[in-house]
Formats: sequence, structure tokens, C-alpha cells
Amino acid sequence: MRPESLKLLLEQVASGSVTPDEAAARLAQLPFEDLGFARLDHHRALRTGMPEVVFAMGKTPSQTAELLTRIAATGATALATRATREAYEATLAKVPSAIFHETARCITIPTTEPQTPRGTVAVLCAGTSDLPVAEEAAVTAETVGASVLRITDVGVAGLHRLLAELPFIRTADAIVVCAGMEGALASVVAGLVAVPVIAVPTSIGYGASFEGITALLGMLNSCSSNVTVVNIDNGFGAGFNAARIAALSVRA
Amino acid sequence: MRPESLKLLLEQVASGSVTPDEAAARLAQLPFEDLGFARLDHHRALRTGMPEVVFAMGKTPSQTAELLTRIAATGATALATRATREAYEATLAKVPSAIFHETARCITIPTTEPQTPRGTVAVLCAGTSDLPVAEEAAVTAETVGASVLRITDVGVAGLHRLLAELPFIRTADAIVVCAGMEGALASVVAGLVAVPVIAVPTSIGYGASFEGITALLGMLNSCSSNVTVVNIDNGFGAGFNAARIAALSVRA
Amino acid sequence: MRPESLKLLLEQVASGSVTPDEAAARLAQLPFEDLGFARLDHHRALRTGMPEVVFAMGKTPSQTAELLTRIAATGATALATRATREAYEATLAKVPSAIFHETARCITIPTTEPQTPRGTVAVLCAGTSDLPVAEEAAVTAETVGASVLRITDVGVAGLHRLLAELPFIRTADAIVVCAGMEGALASVVAGLVAVPVIAVPTSIGYGASFEGITALLGMLNSCSSNVTVVNIDNGFGAGFNAARIAALSVRA
Amino acid sequence: MRPESLKLLLEQVASGSVTPDEAAARLAQLPFEDLGFARLDHHRALRTGMPEVVFAMGKTPSQTAELLTRIAATGATALATRATREAYEATLAKVPSAIFHETARCITIPTTEPQTPRGTVAVLCAGTSDLPVAEEAAVTAETVGASVLRITDVGVAGLHRLLAELPFIRTADAIVVCAGMEGALASVVAGLVAVPVIAVPTSIGYGASFEGITALLGMLNSCSSNVTVVNIDNGFGAGFNAARIAALSVRA
Amino acid sequence: MRPESLKLLLEQVASGSVTPDEAAARLAQLPFEDLGFARLDHHRALRTGMPEVVFAMGKTPSQTAELLTRIAATGATALATRATREAYEATLAKVPSAIFHETARCITIPTTEPQTPRGTVAVLCAGTSDLPVAEEAAVTAETVGASVLRITDVGVAGLHRLLAELPFIRTADAIVVCAGMEGALASVVAGLVAVPVIAVPTSIGYGASFEGITALLGMLNSCSSNVTVVNIDNGFGAGFNAARIAALSVRA
Amino acid sequence: MRPESLKLLLEQVASGSVTPDEAAARLAQLPFEDLGFARLDHHRALRTGMPEVVFAMGKTPSQTAELLTRIAATGATALATRATREAYEATLAKVPSAIFHETARCITIPTTEPQTPRGTVAVLCAGTSDLPVAEEAAVTAETVGASVLRITDVGVAGLHRLLAELPFIRTADAIVVCAGMEGALASVVAGLVAVPVIAVPTSIGYGASFEGITALLGMLNSCSSNVTVVNIDNGFGAGFNAARIAALSVRA
Amino acid sequence: MRPESLKLLLEQVASGSVTPDEAAARLAQLPFEDLGFARLDHHRALRTGMPEVVFAMGKTPSQTAELLTRIAATGATALATRATREAYEATLAKVPSAIFHETARCITIPTTEPQTPRGTVAVLCAGTSDLPVAEEAAVTAETVGASVLRITDVGVAGLHRLLAELPFIRTADAIVVCAGMEGALASVVAGLVAVPVIAVPTSIGYGASFEGITALLGMLNSCSSNVTVVNIDNGFGAGFNAARIAALSVRA
Amino acid sequence: MRPESLKLLLEQVASGSVTPDEAAARLAQLPFEDLGFARLDHHRALRTGMPEVVFAMGKTPSQTAELLTRIAATGATALATRATREAYEATLAKVPSAIFHETARCITIPTTEPQTPRGTVAVLCAGTSDLPVAEEAAVTAETVGASVLRITDVGVAGLHRLLAELPFIRTADAIVVCAGMEGALASVVAGLVAVPVIAVPTSIGYGASFEGITALLGMLNSCSSNVTVVNIDNGFGAGFNAARIAALSVRA
Repeated sequence: MRPESLKLLLEQVASGSVTPDEAAARLAQLPFEDLGFARLDHHRALRTGMPEVVFAMGKTPSQTAELLTRIAATGATALATRATREAYEATLAKVPSAIFHETARCITIPTTEPQTPRGTVAVLCAGTSDLPVAEEAAVTAETVGASVLRITDVGVAGLHRLLAELPFIRTADAIVVCAGMEGALASVVAGLVAVPVIAVPTSIGYGASFEGITALLGMLNSCSSNVTVVNIDNGFGAGFNAARIAALSVRA
Repeated sequence: MRPESLKLLLEQVASGSVTPDEAAARLAQLPFEDLGFARLDHHRALRTGMPEVVFAMGKTPSQTAELLTRIAATGATALATRATREAYEATLAKVPSAIFHETARCITIPTTEPQTPRGTVAVLCAGTSDLPVAEEAAVTAETVGASVLRITDVGVAGLHRLLAELPFIRTADAIVVCAGMEGALASVVAGLVAVPVIAVPTSIGYGASFEGITALLGMLNSCSSNVTVVNIDNGFGAGFNAARIAALSVRA
Repeated sequence: MRPESLKLLLEQVASGSVTPDEAAARLAQLPFEDLGFARLDHHRALRTGMPEVVFAMGKTPSQTAELLTRIAATGATALATRATREAYEATLAKVPSAIFHETARCITIPTTEPQTPRGTVAVLCAGTSDLPVAEEAAVTAETVGASVLRITDVGVAGLHRLLAELPFIRTADAIVVCAGMEGALASVVAGLVAVPVIAVPTSIGYGASFEGITALLGMLNSCSSNVTVVNIDNGFGAGFNAARIAALSVRA
Repeated sequence: MRPESLKLLLEQVASGSVTPDEAAARLAQLPFEDLGFARLDHHRALRTGMPEVVFAMGKTPSQTAELLTRIAATGATALATRATREAYEATLAKVPSAIFHETARCITIPTTEPQTPRGTVAVLCAGTSDLPVAEEAAVTAETVGASVLRITDVGVAGLHRLLAELPFIRTADAIVVCAGMEGALASVVAGLVAVPVIAVPTSIGYGASFEGITALLGMLNSCSSNVTVVNIDNGFGAGFNAARIAALSVRA
Repeated sequence: MRPESLKLLLEQVASGSVTPDEAAARLAQLPFEDLGFARLDHHRALRTGMPEVVFAMGKTPSQTAELLTRIAATGATALATRATREAYEATLAKVPSAIFHETARCITIPTTEPQTPRGTVAVLCAGTSDLPVAEEAAVTAETVGASVLRITDVGVAGLHRLLAELPFIRTADAIVVCAGMEGALASVVAGLVAVPVIAVPTSIGYGASFEGITALLGMLNSCSSNVTVVNIDNGFGAGFNAARIAALSVRA
Repeated sequence: MRPESLKLLLEQVASGSVTPDEAAARLAQLPFEDLGFARLDHHRALRTGMPEVVFAMGKTPSQTAELLTRIAATGATALATRATREAYEATLAKVPSAIFHETARCITIPTTEPQTPRGTVAVLCAGTSDLPVAEEAAVTAETVGASVLRITDVGVAGLHRLLAELPFIRTADAIVVCAGMEGALASVVAGLVAVPVIAVPTSIGYGASFEGITALLGMLNSCSSNVTVVNIDNGFGAGFNAARIAALSVRA
Repeated sequence: MRPESLKLLLEQVASGSVTPDEAAARLAQLPFEDLGFARLDHHRALRTGMPEVVFAMGKTPSQTAELLTRIAATGATALATRATREAYEATLAKVPSAIFHETARCITIPTTEPQTPRGTVAVLCAGTSDLPVAEEAAVTAETVGASVLRITDVGVAGLHRLLAELPFIRTADAIVVCAGMEGALASVVAGLVAVPVIAVPTSIGYGASFEGITALLGMLNSCSSNVTVVNIDNGFGAGFNAARIAALSVRA
Repeated sequence: MRPESLKLLLEQVASGSVTPDEAAARLAQLPFEDLGFARLDHHRALRTGMPEVVFAMGKTPSQTAELLTRIAATGATALATRATREAYEATLAKVPSAIFHETARCITIPTTEPQTPRGTVAVLCAGTSDLPVAEEAAVTAETVGASVLRITDVGVAGLHRLLAELPFIRTADAIVVCAGMEGALASVVAGLVAVPVIAVPTSIGYGASFEGITALLGMLNSCSSNVTVVNIDNGFGAGFNAARIAALSVRA
């Protein structure tokens, strides 16, 4: 509740147009509705175009389908991550426009309102094994509203492949780098560009890659200043943040 | 070297106004000057207003002073992090306008050119022990060009302190959260705001805080989507990225 | 054996009303029956209403059923944790009043004696994935004799949900908080209440959640004073201790 | 702000005895004063008799002295943990009744109001090296209002020493067990008593004790049900929770 | 080759009763036969009664059967650890006297020579889940030649059970203690006896038991002097060493 | 592009035999073709005889088959590691000369050009369980062009077996040592030879072998100077580097 | 208290020769005196000749001196480990026969009773840096009553040095091996001898030796059966156990 | 002892020219003198030109000086690593030609015999803080006999600096790469060259660099095939192996 609204309510009480009881009933919701944090929650969704996201791992196909259907009913784009084909089929039975992004393990139900892409996100990955995470990032970024450039298999062991893509990469407003093993790609890319880089360690590797810990540690210790990091295999978080940053570039 | 420049050079060779030897000499610099990545490096500095940064830990006071002096000579704002008072005094002897940010352990030499603040960064910390890291973030963000809101001692054990500051925090374009121990502040703040949050685990705590590892892990596992993370105690990285994101908000 | 009982026995021997052999037979049980620690074991069960508990993991269904049946035969409430449906069916075949708590993975056989609830335990969890652990805590607390308030899905990323439940939470005499990922819920809740909070890290999460280690470390480093911690996924231990503390509140 | 207070305020506005502006000014403090969580904070201090506690590590002697003086001025018992003798001397210069608990590294300023001990806490430690942590627990428990039984040097390698103290230990309403190395004392004690045991791993040991990690892990895996755990060397947290639990025993 | 044997051989060469070629042929085996380390290998087997042991994990049933058959053919007791029922059946088809120790996952083929038990080993375990490891220790110790006392389910949470068995335990010449979770049993037992205790951490537990690491660390940090430790779940190593130590007691 | 080639091209432009457009088109490839790093990539393959290698884990049989077929079509020896029998059969259907190395889990398609073995690599392993890794090293070294000596089951617990093979081992130009458990074989072998030893920790073991971490750490801390280390189970890397070093010995 | 003693006592009560009060007084000591565990404690010291040992780390020089003096007064050999020269001087002032073992950091006060060496312990170490730990083991073993063979600087990188000492090493009844870095010496030695080997990892090394963890893990994973392990740098524990085992060899 | 030598000796015994006692005395040395491993040790030093190396850490200046003097007396180049200036001065007092390599913390005493450089080693480091480790590698490689190219401050965040040095780097026969933080330089360099790369993780960094563990893990997981790794900060090992490999290139 904005200060001016509170003032108005109290003036209505003073003038008798609102009874004390009615006012009390409205103010009683303050802790979670009128003080801004809860309401903001709704504002945020409207403003950012980011729908609620369903983390499907551990949910039954019908639970996932139900949640997606409800979100789509609000007019927002619905997104489920870590989803199975079974969950997709359950969703499709309810919403024919549902789409399954197989590599990304994502289900989306596009909004019917026309969307203008807002900013460009480049999603790079070091090897083909990193693709599921990279695609989760890409699909998420697209859902948030960004155009996405997908650049695959540019690991640092063959640097010329990365350098060849550099002009293309530099057109992005924000960059997601997915890499397992030693995770060096994030540092190398970040040193070559001016925009924020969000690094996603992947659990790809064996032995002392420790299910992504090595890549995570490498990215946290990047000698390039413009790198921030998300959890291992968290393509969603990286795509979400990159798209939000990219959107800022075109906001004005 | 842009394609058109290359074409022009070659036409000059064809027309005889440039000799093959002269052209060869210029093209010999290609690998690191004309192919874009090196030149970009310079472009980036100009475009982002971010000067070279001196990591002073492990350097002698005179080395730090010398590096800062050279950077300042280019007209850019010079910044040294993890600097001692001795390094500051050595710098001051060379450049009278040098400033020592004691808590932040930073030295800056402001540029003489007028600067327009570009975006607002809020820097929060959970306790007073986190202040050195928070100040490093704040000073860095200011050096990059942001206005900085400093909000101290809003740990989650006394949630009302944080909630009281919320309207203030929400005016920021990007947020840095510094916290040690369990690092829960990042998740709580991120759940209350719409902008990107960059979390900095600090090495504050004892026992099973493991010099910041607990806070780092907590932040990487944040259940709030808009959190990315930097290395333990890396106030510089957080301030740098937050200021860069904030600047995007006002670019157009 | 209390000192006075020992004295009495010896006087009976002196007076001839008990023969040395009979006394020897009774005292022979001393190491584990009469010296207090063993007898206490029985006293404790009687006094606290806490039956023996069967940890069913690694036991066959018939072993679990047999153990539960024996405990129920003593008149106490019987409880098995980490139990399968197969174990439940084996138990049901022997004791028709056996109940399977599917989410909690618990089997109980209620005592036939009337029970008065003794104190109130609130069991909170951050997300729906934490429910099996939270239910194990809730069923255990109920078995010990507490009334249980179940409050689900109040993760810190949406703080208003937690704050909305606060008046309800504050009616509890002791609180169990189950959370995975960064485990921040324990600190936030504990900062809002006056009663002891027992935190249970859950193995929910992925990547750097390390099967609950991150939540465990976060809870151990809680900046709220009224938090103690049990092992990862140990809903039983948390429910047991919370119910015992709650019972103290109503003892007098 | 209780519902009835809010209703009253609004009726005063309706009747004209309070102006809308005055009412707005009072309601503006709602987020952290009137919504309950902040006020509760004060209520809690009053109700539990627990003063604010100063964690003196990393604070200057004069900062610690100032904070303690302010707390004492409210009439509550003031407590600083991890305090140095220098901090004590700075406090003593301001408040002559300040006491230094050298082994515990604590400073207290007793309240002048008469206190009735509320419940009994037994504080056990395995070896003399654990004494600083045990004393921190003991002094904290006393500050909260408990009577404290101190039982030292009852490590499990000489079990008879522990068993000899058992009758004494059993008179406590809650027990704190401090142990380093393998931390086995917590399990053994908890198996012999009926009350809640709060285990404090200490950083005592060498080699694979890993500064208390071994004891911490051992305590978290206790096979005794009535054990909960706090951070390594966190005598304060253990003493605080044990005293709060003990107080429940005598509340009615 | 003992010095006197070498001397004798050379004298035979000098006297002509052995030709240089024959002597060379015998000495050619020196690097691994006659120089002591290799021969000792054989001597050791003879002297200690310890046959070669087959670690069956990762071997096919027929490989295990073949190896056991060859060892048995030498007249020694044959032992395979970590063996499956399939491996046993393959062995039984070749050697009718083969025995399968199901809980211990061991196959033995007893020697036909009469054996005199040499010393007594007590094998204790904390819970029934530790039985496979304890049985591996017990079967191994028996194979080496010891009498074995099996004492099960004497965890420290119910100390009276252990104390009741103490007179029995004290008759052993060496003790093996198998325990998972916090592994405290080793310290407690070792504090009550005078003989060497070999501690075997088991992988029993969940959460922060970390597959036996917690028990391992606890045992390494035992405050009892007479404890040494073997690898997690290494019942074989513990039984082997305990039986060898026990044998020393009766050697003279 | 070598300096002389660049000079020549520019002279052709100057003389009119190449147009500026043609020259621009050729120079446009500079970043990844003509500047040396990319071209070198090709040079390297030619010079070292090392074909591209397919890491088959995570690829479908048909993907592996397709990649191997293409490499073989260039005339180079094709190698796939971590390959399944299914992948082999898919390859065999396309290239009848494909060979499956079952223990090594490798597929090779030999080049039809005659090869001269270039240097000798000894591949040692401590136990038979290490064979898959050792064979991967051996097959890789052979593919690179080395003769390979395979020496199996020479663990340090039976030192005489190793010493007996020493004269044979010493004929190698480079040595690969594969060992799990404590990994001590690398240090012992390296102390007995003069050539470089490449140590491969294997994931063989149980309990505190931690899937090869113990062996990895042991090898990194080798007290022998001539040891370098590769990742756990990385037989390919060890065989590759050893064969390359061995080839140097015969290059002149 | 043996059953027959108990029976006798009760008969004395029955006959009136002992009053119930006297009997109660004697039985009151049962928990720690008469039940065997406490009494045993005394028996053990007498039987094994092992005095109480003072762990001097963290004790003041005068505390250490006082404890040693008291132990010596009982006629037993007194031993303090991890002792400083200051502690020695404080001891010497009280007991002129005190000896300081500087490398071992031990103080001993020899018993005045004649001692017969009981068994032989060989103490090996890999490098000169391991000497303090090895000497602690040696001095401890001597204090327990063993003859000690000291064999220094026999690391596995120069195997011939170890093999040269083998005949000497084989005369021992038990062996202690101290090694840091990769700790391979324990496995190699154990493979060459028939007696029990107690391995002591030392904290010697750098980088990935992790203060002895690498050596500890290596020793726990020894492929030699006759190895058991103690804590990092725990020379005392190794020397104690080895000497006790050696004493068994000569007991009869 | 070669077979023919053994045969000859035995024939001499047969013929009487050598007595059995003399033969026995010679054969008694077999284990460590005549079987090749010990003798080889000497051969190796002669053949490789590598002198004994003194690891000076933990040795007194006079011990280091004494050891270096003895080695120099044999005519070999003497090298001490991790040496202090004090150790250098102690050495200089004995051998005026001793040289102190301050950054490398090495002392060398050059041989007086003319040396022909044997192969070229490039030593790269990512930042100036890595210089001590890089210099240790460089000085060691020079001592072994290689020419060394030093290339400093070519971290991957500014890739153009590395690419500019590439033609220079490619002239090396073996490469050492020293890097801390994320350690990515090793992968990038190895992907650009054809020769073996030996990676040295350095302990440079802070927070989650964990004293070099992050760099170590990154290097072990390098996606470039031609990388092997040594211990953290082990410049000596890297320089030694690189120089030995480089020497192979020129051996023929």
C-alpha cells in the first residue's frame, strides 16, 4: 500500500465514507498483501514477463500438467524445467499448444499475446554433452523474452573455433557459458567480450571433475571480472538472469 | 581491423600508394591488434568507463603506486583493491588526488573528467563484519560509475530491519548482497525484489562456516531465481558486475 | 536400584526374610538392570511415553512386523520409520490396527490407552519435495504425544507466504523446520519466534546442494540463537526432540 | 499492533480525535514495529529474560564496552562472548559491576533485579581442553537464568568417571555435552538420560580431527535419539538453548 | 636363501659336488625367489597359516572358483571375500567341501589338516546392519586360526548391553569393533579392555554419515590409546590383523 | 600464413595479378585459418600421426560409427574410447576393418599405410581390476605409433613380482603406471627407472579409496621426481602422452 | 565383583558378620569400582606396565610437570608427549631424573625398578622430516618396554635403501611406519614382512598432501593385509600399540 | 649382477681362485648393489645429468650448505629448492661459485664442466604472482640442461597477450604452464601447441581457490590431450620432467 493510498483510506474513514471496520479489514491484510512485498510479487511478474516456473523433477506428470495449465490460463507463457516426455504428454492432453523441448527437458505453453524480443542472449557450450544444460538456458531465455544465439562445441582445446564465432558472439547483450570438465570457457569468453557473462558449470566429465565441482570452482575463480556463476547444471537460472539483463539494454 | 579497412589497405597496395612491405608490417600485428579481440580490449575500456584494476595483494607499495599512476595518466579512474595503507602513501606521494578507502582496502584516483552517475546499485550486508567486502563492492561500483546505496546490518535473524529498508532497496537497478555464516540474506532479498542480485559469500563465521564455503554453497543453491554468485570475499567482482548491469538501465 | 531399596534388600537378608541366594539372583542383574542405567531405560520409556522405535531400512518386512508387534504388545505406541508398504502389509496381517503413513514412510500401531496431547509442535517445510522428511517429523511428534501443526511450502523466496502463517506458527511450543537447497528457512523462522527451533536439512536439491550438505552447513551456521540441528533427512530425530521439549511446557 | 489497537485507532480517526495525518504517521511504522515480528522481538526479550548478546570477536574493546553498557542500562543482564581481557577492562571502566569469566572468554554485567534460577542445566566436557567452550555454555546458561552443574573430564575412554557422575547428571533438566576428537561423549551420555542433550563439537584434537569436523559429524550421526547439535565451538548456542528448555520445566 | 644355505651351496661348488651351471640356475631365481622377500612370502604363509585370499569382487564366479581350487590344492585353507552365491556354486561344483558364509559374503575351503585354535578374537558390532562386515572379520579370523566370540548389537546408545557382555569380551586376546554412524563403540570398548582393538568403520548410516567417513574419522580420533583402524567396511583386514595378534599370545 | 606467403600475396596485389577483393577474401580467413593456430592444428595431426579421437561415452552407436568412418576416410588411424560393443557393431557395418578392444573399451580402424613403431611404452598396472584403464592406455599408445609392453599385476604388496619385471620395464622409453587403492606403484616404479612415468589413478578400491581420489592424491605427492599425473581412469591421456614422449626418443 | 565374592558378602550379611550398612557401603561403589570396568582400569595399568600419559599440548609447563611428578611418584615410568623445553625444565626442577627427548618432543621420568625389554619394535620413517613423529613412536614404545630399532630415510623413491635394511627390519616383532606425502612406505614394508605394521601418516608435504590426509588415505587403502592405521602424526598411538603387540610375543 | 658375471664368479669358486667366503661376501650385497636397482641409481644420475636435489624446506642453512657442497664435489651441478637467503649465505661461505635465484628460492652451484643445452623448455605463467613457482621450474630445467624461454603474465583473461607470444612458444620442445585461480591457461596453451605440456597448479588466489585445489582440479580435467599435471606449487617437478622430455628431442 503506497503512502498516498493509506492517507486516502484514512481520510475516507475520517469523512465517514469508509467505516472503521471496513478499514480494519483492509489493513489486516497488510503483512503480506499491502505492504508491498507480496503485491510486488505480482507486479514483478507483470513487469518482467516472467511467468511462474515449474520445477518438474519430483512431480508427477499430472501435477506438472496441472500447474502449467493454470499458469497458461493467466495469459502468461508457462515453463516447466527438468520435465519428462510423460509430463509433456499429460500437458498436451490439456493444452494443445504445449511444446516439448526434448534436449532442454522443458515444456512451454506460449502466450497468445504477441511478444517483442527484448535483447539478445548468446548461449555457448563447450561440448555436445553440455547441450541439455545449454538448451535449458536457451529455452528459458526465450521464455523470458530474449532472442537467443546458440553456439555449440567451442571448447578451449580448439580455440580457433571460438575465435571464428567471436563477431557473432559480440552481438549479444548478455552471454551464458555452459561448460563441464575444467570450465575454462567462461574465463576465455569473458576476456573477449564487454557484456556480463553468466557461467553455468555442468556435471559433464569423469574422475576428478566430481560431477561439476571442478567446473564450478574454476568459474568462481575466473580471472575475468565480468563473470558471475550459478549452480551446477542450473541452465534455468543462467538463462533467466541473462535474459533479464539483456532486456535492460532495450528498456529505454 | 574492420573489413572495410582491410579492403582499403589492399586497394592502396594495388594503387601503389602503400608498398607491400608497409602493408605487411601493418598486417603483421593482426593476431593481437587488428583481429578484434585486442582492439576490443581498448574499446571496452573506453565504452564501459572501467579502468584497469590493480589487485594489490602480493604487490609492493611502490609497484601498486606505479601501476595506479600510469592508469591515472590515461585519464581513467584508477582503482586498486586489497591495498594497504603503505601502498596508499606511496601512491599519494605521486598523485595528490589519491584517496584511501580504509574499510574497503581500496585506493582510487578519480578521473578529472565530469562523470554522470549511471544507474543505482544497492550494497547490503548481513553484519558489521561483512563491511570490508561490502565496501570493496561499493567503491568498485562507484568507480565504474554507479550511485551506491549502502545498507548495513540487515541479517535475516532480525527480519524487520531488512523489511524496513525495503522501499529504499527497491530503488536500485542491481543489488549486491554480502553475507557470511549461512548466507541466507541473498535468497531473502532476491525474493523481495525484481532486479538482478549478485551474492558475495564472505569468510565471516567460525567452525562449520569453513571460511565462507557454507555461505558460498548456500548462495549457489538459492531458491530465488534472480541470484548469481561470485567468489568468497570478491566484493570487487560483485560491485563491478552490478554497476555494469545498472548502467544498462540508463543506457538508452 | 535406589540406595534405599538396596538397603532394604540387605536388611531382609540380615533378618533372614530373603536368602542370600535370592538376593544374589536379584543383584546379579545389576550391571544392566539394577544399577540405574538399564532400569532407567525402562523408566524413561514409561515416563516419556516414547516407545521403542524401529528403523526399518535394511530390515525385512517380516522383521519389521515382528518388532512392531512385540512393542505394541507392551501397550506402548509402536513406530517404524523408513518403512515400505510391504513392511506395512506384513504388520497389518498381524495387527489390524496398524496404520501406514505413506508420505512419511512410517508405520504406527496406536496404543489403546487414551492419550492427552502434550504440547504443540509446528512442522514447517520449504517445498513440497521436503514433505517426506517433514511428515516423518510430524508422525514421530504425534507418536510421542504432541499436537502437530503442518505448514508446507513456505520457502524464503516468497517471504509473504511465511509471514502470513506467522500467527499460526507462534502458537507452537517447539518448531521443526525442514529445508533443502540453502536451508535458509531455519534462520528466518527462528528469528521470528521465541521457542526452540530444530532444523532438519533435507537432501533436496541438485548440483552444489551435495545431497543436503549445503543445507546442513547453513543451519549449523544460523545467525539465530535458538536453532539446533539434526542429521540430513532425520525427520525422526527432529520430531522426537521437538515433542519432548513441547511436552515440558505442559508438564507442571 | 494488536487487532484491537488498530480498531481503536481507526475509531479515533472516525471520531475526529486523531487526524488522518497522525494516524498515517503511526501506521507508517507498521512494517517493523506494529506488524508483530518487530514487536515480538521486544516481547521475546522481556519474556525470556534473554538480553541481547554481544559477539565480541572482531569488535574493538571500546565497541564491546559501549554495547554492553547500553544493554545493561536497560536493566537486562548483559553478556559478551569471545571477549578479551582488554574488552573487559574497557567495560569495567564504565560499569564497575562487570565480571570477566576468563576461561569462558565472556563478560557479564549482572542485572540488579533479583533472579530466580529457572531449571538446571548440566554442562559436561570430555577433557580439560574443552573447558573454554564448556564455560561459554555454562556462563550463557546462567545468564539466561539456569542453575548450572559443571562436570569436567568425563571422556569415554574412562567410562567409570562418567558413570560415577550419573546420579548428579540426572538431576538436570537439559544437558550440554562438549567434546572434540571423536565426540563420542554425546551419544554415550544421551543414551543414559531422559532429557534433551545439546551437543557441541569442539575444535580440540589434531590431524584427522579437522578442527572439530570429526566431532561434529559424529554428533550429527548419534545413535541416541535425544541429541541435537550446534556449530563447532558454539558453547553460547548450546547454553542458550539448554537454558531455554530447562526453563520450560519450571514454567508452570 | 639363508646365509648358511648360500655358504653351503658355494662350498658345494668349490668341492665340485655342484657344478657352476647348476648353482647359477638356482641363484638365477634370486631376485624374487632367493633374496628373501619372495621366499619369505612363502615362509610367511607357512608360518602364519594364512592362505592366499581371493578378493572376489569384480571377478567372475569361475575365476573365483578356479583360484580357490588352486589354493585348496596346496593344503591351505582357502578364503574368498566379497563373494556371491554364484561364485560359491561354481566353487562347490569343483570342491564339495566349500562352505558359503552368506552374511559374511565369504567362501572358505577348510584345510584337511587338523587345526588348533590359536588365540581368541572378539568381534563386536554396534547394530545388526553392521553384521556383514563383522562376519567378514569373524570368518577371516577363524580362517587364520583364531577362536572367535561374536557379540552383536551393543551400540553405545544402550550402554548396559555392552557392559553386560564385558566379562565375556575380556577373555579375548584381540578385539575387532565394527560400527557405522558415529563409530563411538570403538572408543568405549577400548577404554574398558587391555588388549589391542582394531576398529572397522562401516558404511552404515545416512546423511552426514557419508558412507562411513564419519565413523572412520571418529575411530582415527579415538581418545583410547589401544585403537588402530582399517578402511571402511574392511572386515577382512581387521579380522586378519586381530587373529595374527591373538596368535602371538599363544605362540610361546 | 607464413610471413613470406603474406609478402607474396601483397606483391601479387601490387602487381595486379591478384585483385584486392580476392586478397581480402583470402585474408578474411585469417583468424582461424591463416594465423597459425588453426593451421597448426592440421600440421599437428600430420606430424604426430595422432588422429582425432572420439570420446564415445554419451554418444549413440551411430554417431560414434559415423565419426570413426569420417576419420578413417582421411587415411588416419581412427580411435574411439569408452565405446560399447553396440558402437563397435555399428562401426563394423560401415568399415569391415574396424577392431574392438573389449577390455580397453576402444574401437580402432587401422590406417592402411605402413607404420613404423616409434618408441616403446611400458604400461603397468597394479591389479587385474586396473586392466580396462591400462588397456585404454595401451591401445591409445599403439594408435599413436608406439610399441607397447603390457605388465600386469605388479602391485607393491608383492614387490618381488615388480622387481622380476624390472629389466623388461627398463627397455621402455616412457612408462604408464595404472593403480587404484593407495596408488603407490607409481612412486616405486619411478624410483627404479630413468624415463618419464605418467601415473593414472584408477577408481578401483572401496571405502576410503573414494573412487580414485586416494590414488590421485598419492600420485600427485609422489616422492619420485619423474612422475606426472592425469585424471582418474584417464588411460587415454596417459597412453597419448607416453607415446608422444617415446616418439621423441627415435625422432632424430 | 565376581559372583562368588558377591555371594560371600551376602552370606556374611546373613550370618551377621557384616552389617547391612557395611555391605551397602561396599556395594555403593559398584558402578565404577566393583563392576569391573573401573577396577580393571587399575589392573590394566599394573598388568601392561603402561603408565598414564600426559598429552602436554595446551597444558602449562607447571601443569605438565605436576602431572609427571605425580605419576612418577607411583613408581611407574612417566611420559609426556608434545612437550616443550619449558615443560621439561619445569619437570627437571622437581624430578632430577627427568629426560627430554627433543626431537620426539617427549619428557620421560624412568622408573627406578629394573625393566626387562619385552619384544622389539622397528620404527621406520620415509624422510628426515618425519623424524619427530617417528621419535615420538620410538620413545613411547621404549616407555612401554620394547627394544626399538630406528630406521630413517628409507622412502620408496630409493627402494634399495629399504631393501638393504630388510634383514634388520625383519628381526622386529611389530613395525611402525611413519610417512608423509603419498605414504607408500607402509604398503611396501608390509608386503615384505610377516608381522603387524602400524602406519602413521605424517603431515609432511605440501600442496595436495593436505597436511597428511593424502598419506592417511593411502595407508587406509593399503593393498597389504597386515597394515592398520592411526591418526595423522600420532606417533604415540603407533608406538603404544606396536609395543603392546611386541610384548605379546615374549609373554609366555 | 649380470648372468655372465654370476657364472664367472661361480666358475672362479669352482676353480678355487675365489673362496666360498669371498663369493658369499660379494653375493650378500646382491639385494641392493648387484641386482641392478641400486646400481642403476648411479647410472641414472650419470646418464641424465640430473644431480641430487636438496629440498631445503625444513633443513637448517648449514645442513643445506653441507649437502650442496658434497654434491658439487662430485662434479655435478648442485641444486637446492625452497631455499632461504640464509641457506644461500651459508653455502656461499663454502663454495664461492654458488648462485642464489631469489624469486625461484633456489640455490645452484654450476658444474665446471662445459654443458651443451639439450632442448628448449618454455615456462609460462598466468600472472606475476605465479613467478616463484615458474622460476623454480625454469631454474630446475636449466639445471637439468635445457634452454628456457620465460613467458610471463599471459593469463586467459587477455588472450591476445598469449596469442602474440605463440610463435615464440612454439619453438619449445616441452612446455611448463604455471597458473593459479582457475588454472585455465594450461588447457588453452595445450590446445595451441603440439608438444607435451606439464601443468603446475599454483596456490595463488583466494576464497574458493582453496590454496591451489581449484587450479589442480581444472588442470586434471583439461580437455586438451597433451597435458599432464604435478602437485600444487611443484615447479621443480614440472621443470625436471619438461627438461627430460626436451632432452629426448635432441638425443639422437
